[in-house]
Amino acid sequence: MPQTIANRLQALRCEMQKEALNAWIVTCSDPHLCEYLPENWMFLRYLTGFTGSYATLVVTREAAFLWTDSRYWEQAARQLEGTGIEVKRLGAAGVPSPGLWLQQNMPAESEVGIDPQTISEQDFRRLETALTERGIHLTASMGLLERLWPERPEASHAPVYVFTNGQKPVNEKLASVRKMMRAAGADSLLIATLEDIAWLTNLRGSDIACTPVFRAYALVTDEALYLYVDPEKIKDAAVAAHLAQNGITAVDYAKRRDHIASALKDRRVLLDPAAVNHAVYALLEEQSSAYVIAGERPTLLLKSRKSRAELDLLRQTMREDGAALCEFFALLDEKLKKGETVTEVQMAQMLHEERAKRKGFVSDSFEAIVAVGENSALPHYNPKTGGNAPLAQYDDTLLLIDSGGQYTTGTTDVTRTVLIGRATDAMKTDFTAVLRGHIALALAVFPKGAFGSQLDTLVRTPLWEIGADFGHGTGHGVGFFLSVHEGPVSISPRAPARESARVVPGLVLSNEPGLYREGHYGIRTENLVTPVPDETMLTAMQPMLHFETLTLAPIETQLIKTAMMTPVEINWVNGYHQRVREELLPLLSPRAAQWLKRATEII
Amino acid sequence: MPQTIANRLQALRCEMQKEALNAWIVTCSDPHLCEYLPENWMFLRYLTGFTGSYATLVVTREAAFLWTDSRYWEQAARQLEGTGIEVKRLGAAGVPSPGLWLQQNMPAESEVGIDPQTISEQDFRRLETALTERGIHLTASMGLLERLWPERPEASHAPVYVFTNGQKPVNEKLASVRKMMRAAGADSLLIATLEDIAWLTNLRGSDIACTPVFRAYALVTDEALYLYVDPEKIKDAAVAAHLAQNGITAVDYAKRRDHIASALKDRRVLLDPAAVNHAVYALLEEQSSAYVIAGERPTLLLKSRKSRAELDLLRQTMREDGAALCEFFALLDEKLKKGETVTEVQMAQMLHEERAKRKGFVSDSFEAIVAVGENSALPHYNPKTGGNAPLAQYDDTLLLIDSGGQYTTGTTDVTRTVLIGRATDAMKTDFTAVLRGHIALALAVFPKGAFGSQLDTLVRTPLWEIGADFGHGTGHGVGFFLSVHEGPVSISPRAPARESARVVPGLVLSNEPGLYREGHYGIRTENLVTPVPDETMLTAMQPMLHFETLTLAPIETQLIKTAMMTPVEINWVNGYHQRVREELLPLLSPRAAQWLKRATEII
Repeated sequence: MPQTIANRLQALRCEMQKEALNAWIVTCSDPHLCEYLPENWMFLRYLTGFTGSYATLVVTREAAFLWTDSRYWEQAARQLEGTGIEVKRLGAAGVPSPGLWLQQNMPAESEVGIDPQTISEQDFRRLETALTERGIHLTASMGLLERLWPERPEASHAPVYVFTNGQKPVNEKLASVRKMMRAAGADSLLIATLEDIAWLTNLRGSDIACTPVFRAYALVTDEALYLYVDPEKIKDAAVAAHLAQNGITAVDYAKRRDHIASALKDRRVLLDPAAVNHAVYALLEEQSSAYVIAGERPTLLLKSRKSRAELDLLRQTMREDGAALCEFFALLDEKLKKGETVTEVQMAQMLHEERAKRKGFVSDSFEAIVAVGENSALPHYNPKTGGNAPLAQYDDTLLLIDSGGQYTTGTTDVTRTVLIGRATDAMKTDFTAVLRGHIALALAVFPKGAFGSQLDTLVRTPLWEIGADFGHGTGHGVGFFLSVHEGPVSISPRAPARESARVVPGLVLSNEPGLYREGHYGIRTENLVTPVPDETMLTAMQPMLHFETLTLAPIETQLIKTAMMTPVEINWVNGYHQRVREELLPLLSPRAAQWLKRATEII
Repeated sequence: MPQTIANRLQALRCEMQKEALNAWIVTCSDPHLCEYLPENWMFLRYLTGFTGSYATLVVTREAAFLWTDSRYWEQAARQLEGTGIEVKRLGAAGVPSPGLWLQQNMPAESEVGIDPQTISEQDFRRLETALTERGIHLTASMGLLERLWPERPEASHAPVYVFTNGQKPVNEKLASVRKMMRAAGADSLLIATLEDIAWLTNLRGSDIACTPVFRAYALVTDEALYLYVDPEKIKDAAVAAHLAQNGITAVDYAKRRDHIASALKDRRVLLDPAAVNHAVYALLEEQSSAYVIAGERPTLLLKSRKSRAELDLLRQTMREDGAALCEFFALLDEKLKKGETVTEVQMAQMLHEERAKRKGFVSDSFEAIVAVGENSALPHYNPKTGGNAPLAQYDDTLLLIDSGGQYTTGTTDVTRTVLIGRATDAMKTDFTAVLRGHIALALAVFPKGAFGSQLDTLVRTPLWEIGADFGHGTGHGVGFFLSVHEGPVSISPRAPARESARVVPGLVLSNEPGLYREGHYGIRTENLVTPVPDETMLTAMQPMLHFETLTLAPIETQLIKTAMMTPVEINWVNGYHQRVREELLPLLSPRAAQWLKRATEII
């Protein structure tokens, strides 16, 4: 393999020489800036052998460097051994980002190339500004990457299908989009992100792992909605009827560039620089007389505000998903008690199989994190590439499982940390502090429209009290049978104080504080929540909200130190467990029912 | 007066016509973007008669509009009556900002003018981008404003003086500045903000009300430090010696433009777009071969991190300032008990006089907010323009006083809300909720480097519990014998998650939650605090901090409902009051000593 990689990098350097480039950047991105890459855009994996989900490769004439964050440092070192590619530990003290590294290491007047389809306009502009400051040129070059990969897989032709569960009609969604588009001073809107297109058109597909979307662009004008899509995908009569009924004009994906350029002639088009690749921007600037208005795409905000019907379906889905978790834990319990050893990958498979039995299940919503012991101290651990540790009955350790499902009735995401064997006092203290943080958010009353950064602190305070903290955000938005990570609202110290990022009813967010003791164990407790009006305060100065917890699954009571908790916090646990029991018991096998009763005993 | 204003606007319109402008913008800003305007840059006041500290005027050929925020809505309506200038309530629902209004109301191809000295580069760029989107041109025009004001006052010639209390030597400060300048890729730094220049040069002046600074620019290169300053101001021998000793080259302020343009020839100059006016930017772009690097000025961060010596002096200053407050409250108490009526302006004067008796006092650090009853519901009330309400013994109301002093040993800022007569239950509930928020921050333990936005929530939680909130931030930075409002760190929902905005030891910040019941009363309790390492947690995962409260003044115990408080919170009040008593009693007159003993009785 190292020789294959060396040959591929050599081929890249030949192409760089032909185009007079001194460096070339490869990102983990595709023209639609998807969170999960389609196979045929995995250029970084092809060129390096690295299989992690996030990295940036910089190849110069003499050397090659791969930046990746802490969750992949070890994996990258292992997978890149012998290739001559140096791993740069992104986020470590004193390690410059790729942009800064290029600034500092490339001579003035040098040429740095990138495929403009693999970078958002926003990131391209930032990089260009940084490099220009040092007299370095950033060159957008299409086609070079494709030439390097002769056996590159074809794009998926998976069929598109109509999806209307809980959805408002397309014309209602379009009316809202057009209203926001006009408020931004635009008469058209070009959308490149697949979740937004799926939401707007009430269609779904299977081009990407874990997210039911299909490759497309969409163009909204005052009069029309154009959908640029592979004609192979929409041959189904129901889809054709749906397109016709909703006035959606399908245009061949392959002909999108010319059609977009001509449809936008003399138009004022709204483009989201964070969600449209640089090649599209360049197309409009060079080949069209369109005037570009930069701004957040309205679909991002609109699809984050779930309809009442979506929330109702999601509440049902939570029962299915919670039942799957209970079945899994009961089965695991049984296997361990029999003296069996189960590996992390086996557990992920068992859990997948339990979910697959549930009503409406389509796929996992992300690659499950199943982590035993010290592996759980890595917040984004992947059992397949991380070592696949075995678990047995008397291990006296923690097992952290973060997983979720795509159901046609909604998307789930849940994390539980459970005890295997006996707990140390430190484990209990840490688990209880995380739980207190989780409960603080679950019980919080806050003004409608608070920023996610304001709510984040509530979760951390109990951790700060024991001198701890965690490096990730508290919560992310979750789509409805769409991406498990969805903007524009998040609960994080870095959540922006922007109008579209305010916490309001209709959102679905995760509540997932954690605590990670490197080399020992990690803890995370995650439920999905939705903000609802708080009617308890009659004298409030303004509308107040609190969260309704949606996820239904027991929380490990063996790790709770009630002495650290207030009566209100203890009541929350018992009340939640009572609800979990009542909602899930009717759905469970006898084995799982028995397990759940024990797991939700009063504390 | 209305006729005078009409004439002045007419003169402006004639100038606009000469320059073919369709609209003209007047800001409340000067070439150094000072918080407090020097007299000779009060163009907006000259043209409108409006005396508030913040407004934006837009004059078109047919009409004129003045935008100001809620604290000035009433005052603007009163002062602009009969002038034909329409007041726009900035921040009210549905009221567009001046930029948006221009976007929506000026036809395409129209010309909008502004004096580029009166707007930061950052604001100019934003406005230009917004207007360009609609095909409107933004024209920078210098000289027009000056031609309108024949009797315009001369710029201040107040002398500059050497200031070394608690200061590191200039060469140490310069070394730190140059290091950060180089890290930003620059070989020079142009500074326009007066506080930064005063800090860097260890000089002070008296050109601006409430802030001991002097009009200047400074240019730092690898080899030199140029100070552009009126030669009249630096005639003092001590100043000349200080400049010589520290290698500071004084250049006549009037000759700055040519000198800067030539000194920056072929240089890479760091400029802070938020703190340099557009005229300076344009100068460098047009008349110099300098390459501009946009970034935060290093002096902003460096001067916010107080030296140990500055903090020691500030602790002494707090005793002086606290003593002045006690003397004032004792005297007020006596006057009211005698049956006297005292107005808000009289109280401000009394308080100023008490401060003026204290060691090192130079001036107030801002115009004191002294607000009786419903006036206190306006967070930025000004008694001079707000009505000057009288106060008497049996008013059964709240008195809010927010004030501070500039001492040669530091700058203070303190707010107390006191009861006059009897309290309602609602007053006590509200006061106690605010106090609980204040205490939450005073007692918080948090990771070193937390963002101000993270800490802000701690203060709000007790208010959210009673359905309340407040519209301003929790805290701002405070200079050392410099501006009472200082960046880059603040405690606010909108505080940015930027590296330079992290909370670290050395900062001086305010802790000032409030609660405002429109038409009834307002409450605010403000102390200055400084973050210090927390050594109590031996098992902490990372360095933790807590705040040391610096301000020394009693908090109104008659408004505290102990039933709403935890024992820890009650202990904090009693412990703080004990410290206040111990520190202040030795400095007080018998009258004030007696008052303080009563005011700090145990709760």
